[in-house]
Amino acid sequence: MAKAVLTPQAENFPAWYQDVVARAELAENGPARGTMVIRPWGYAIWELMQADMDRRIKATGAQNVAFPMFIPMSFLEKEKEHVEGFSPELAVVTHGGGQELTEPLVVRPTSETVINHYFARWVQSHRDLPMMLNLWNNVVRWELRPRLFLRTTEFLWQEGHTVHPTYAEAVEETARMLEVYRRFMAETLAISVVVGEKSPGERFAGADHTFTCEALMRDGKALQMGTSHNLGHNFARAFDIRYLDADGERRHAATTSWGTSTRMIGGMIMVHGDDHGLRLPPAIAPHQVVVLQLGDEDEVAAAAGRIAAELRGAGVRVHVDARTHTSFGRRSVDWELKGVPVRIELGARELAAGRATIVRRDDRSRTGAPLDGAARAAAGLLDEIQAALLAQSRAFREEHTHPVTDLAALTDGVRRGGLFRAAWSGAEGSEEALGAATGATIRCIVDDDPPAPACVVTGEPARYTVLIGRAY
Amino acid sequence: MAKAVLTPQAENFPAWYQDVVARAELAENGPARGTMVIRPWGYAIWELMQADMDRRIKATGAQNVAFPMFIPMSFLEKEKEHVEGFSPELAVVTHGGGQELTEPLVVRPTSETVINHYFARWVQSHRDLPMMLNLWNNVVRWELRPRLFLRTTEFLWQEGHTVHPTYAEAVEETARMLEVYRRFMAETLAISVVVGEKSPGERFAGADHTFTCEALMRDGKALQMGTSHNLGHNFARAFDIRYLDADGERRHAATTSWGTSTRMIGGMIMVHGDDHGLRLPPAIAPHQVVVLQLGDEDEVAAAAGRIAAELRGAGVRVHVDARTHTSFGRRSVDWELKGVPVRIELGARELAAGRATIVRRDDRSRTGAPLDGAARAAAGLLDEIQAALLAQSRAFREEHTHPVTDLAALTDGVRRGGLFRAAWSGAEGSEEALGAATGATIRCIVDDDPPAPACVVTGEPARYTVLIGRAY
Repeated sequence: MAKAVLTPQAENFPAWYQDVVARAELAENGPARGTMVIRPWGYAIWELMQADMDRRIKATGAQNVAFPMFIPMSFLEKEKEHVEGFSPELAVVTHGGGQELTEPLVVRPTSETVINHYFARWVQSHRDLPMMLNLWNNVVRWELRPRLFLRTTEFLWQEGHTVHPTYAEAVEETARMLEVYRRFMAETLAISVVVGEKSPGERFAGADHTFTCEALMRDGKALQMGTSHNLGHNFARAFDIRYLDADGERRHAATTSWGTSTRMIGGMIMVHGDDHGLRLPPAIAPHQVVVLQLGDEDEVAAAAGRIAAELRGAGVRVHVDARTHTSFGRRSVDWELKGVPVRIELGARELAAGRATIVRRDDRSRTGAPLDGAARAAAGLLDEIQAALLAQSRAFREEHTHPVTDLAALTDGVRRGGLFRAAWSGAEGSEEALGAATGATIRCIVDDDPPAPACVVTGEPARYTVLIGRAY
Repeated sequence: MAKAVLTPQAENFPAWYQDVVARAELAENGPARGTMVIRPWGYAIWELMQADMDRRIKATGAQNVAFPMFIPMSFLEKEKEHVEGFSPELAVVTHGGGQELTEPLVVRPTSETVINHYFARWVQSHRDLPMMLNLWNNVVRWELRPRLFLRTTEFLWQEGHTVHPTYAEAVEETARMLEVYRRFMAETLAISVVVGEKSPGERFAGADHTFTCEALMRDGKALQMGTSHNLGHNFARAFDIRYLDADGERRHAATTSWGTSTRMIGGMIMVHGDDHGLRLPPAIAPHQVVVLQLGDEDEVAAAAGRIAAELRGAGVRVHVDARTHTSFGRRSVDWELKGVPVRIELGARELAAGRATIVRRDDRSRTGAPLDGAARAAAGLLDEIQAALLAQSRAFREEHTHPVTDLAALTDGVRRGGLFRAAWSGAEGSEEALGAATGATIRCIVDDDPPAPACVVTGEPARYTVLIGRAY
């Protein structure tokens, strides 16, 4: 074998990640610090994720809209916690059309402030509720330590914003969207996530409650993959969103927001990828099957075309790689790097034998199939691969989730990686103490019932079960 | 009849436009000057336009990607004409993450400069060519006189960027995309446009040739609906995009760019709209058919449901309006305003008679149909309405396009509106003279052969046939 094209994961996981992002031609750094260029293969994955997520969001009754990316600074200042949370990360436009602006414009870090301004105008009566909007757009949060997909100054995402007549309905909406996200991650990204509530130190600026989907990467670090916020009456009060209820009384509404971003691509890479490159779940693979045509003979091209046509007819995204001037090894490595779930290899030798070779990307197994059954065999593998990736993701997370009861064991465990299930008091200052002692954070509260009587950090009476780990 | 909900077109066309954008709930002004909020109905139209255009663009071989919206000022300065053209319209970020930036960042007015920087890295050999990329994103051009959809500081669009080995292939690509746009406008937007080349005064900053699709609005003004630019070697030289050709020689590539935006929504409104509101071409109508349920009776609801299910089964986008607490008049007016192509009215009276009422939005005609044939009848009207709108758009443009041979007739004509076919010399200064004399501009050069020997502006020997008119 030629030497590895990627730094092995076990040797240096961050270097492996950088290598795979570059070699699979997913993305590159942009010219301005922290920005990102998403290349065709990376963007095609994002388009498939978007289409799937968009269907799920619309099925809840939300409608897509667009809001301006420039927000007057005064809007942000209306919700005190919100502006404090986001101020350090803002990009500010001070000049437009050759003039200095009288009021600086913020490039949206998230759109609560501008959307709630309009909610206050659009929501008049209880009959206008619920109002459920979703945006697909770009936002900017200044990043000091950018990493492609995981932390970029500008990123692409969807942000949902909803208004409800009662707090209880905002609670329901927050939970509903968390479940939409969890299912999307399981069913589409083949990633098994833990859902739970964020501790106060990790809560969205301005929210009463933030819920999260947390995934475990193959290096033992956690990644927050999506969040759903119950904003309670905070924004409704700051922006005066009130409605006339059925009894003729004016009441403050309750609002929520929820979002997922291109960061999920980073998670998908680090959950499924191996030392040979990406392993794409078939649901989001731009090519689900590649037919690798070996040799220029007319009969080979014709046979490759027939198999591709049959796959296409069955609704499979298929690509014929006819770059016969490029070596077989180079082409195989390329499609492995890019994570295409199934390859069909077909040349004169295979034609003569009446059998094609089918290669699975997930376990790299090779099998033969009769020529006229190759398309069916390849198509049949897609569900199997999707399920296998999800099962592996679940098994890995479960194997690397450990109960701990004392701070020494936790600190030691965190150093090796994984998630740690522990009792927590919820006492003020205990999150900071946890961070200082272990370098880890509470990823989420998974239960109101503690697994032990004493808090793992402070020894005080425990109130919650939490998952602790280092995170991206 | 109640009084008109919109200012009549004949009374005040700009007021009609503002009214219809507001009353059909398409869009509103954003809080920062010149920005725009696109509401669910407007955005659903945009999504349908995007999906259709995206299919057409991908069919040419282009792939979607994302580039950062922040561009270092130094990038813009690399192409001299380009920076001169865009400088007055730039929004500039001077602060990020609480610090003043060492180099200000421009919010992209268009992405040639950043994309060509990457083309120079990605294009190495003739085997890498053509390279064809497309972006769906937001751009910013400071607007002094903003109008929703037509001129907004931030707008949504697609911008295509391609690299070719030879100038001739860039010429071909520019023409190919112009034709993609022309067909999209005819087949999807039901708008008959004139295509032609822009005169130097209207050319894209940095292009050798700009081609345009020009539509005629119902007030007699023209609207540029999409453009395709042959950038020749200008950007390839500025950014050093070179490739090794088959003979082993390094050559400068040739590039193109092409774009269409949310401005097309404004054009669609002003081409098809009437005093009752929008008239949406079925191809981009979020609801192609609305079933107006009159009365709460179970049988009525069931019959409305059956008709809707049949339409849905036939691939029609259908919506049942069951807001029976709202008056029939109000609901009819709403769907007329929103431009839904076909309404089916169904109540206890219709059920008893065994017939539903079918109303076309385009000509407002009402016909009856047997209940079990109503869905088929409504579905059958969609192609007819799509064709009728296109035919009307073509007829209107042709009726309002006049030949002129002298400046006095042109000046007089321009005052009344329409397009004027005239002979033009192409002489320097003649475009400015035309503007000063008539308030109109050359919309495009439609022929290299002049219709008369003398230029309509200067009397000098003519070289071209041009279309002249006032424009948005």
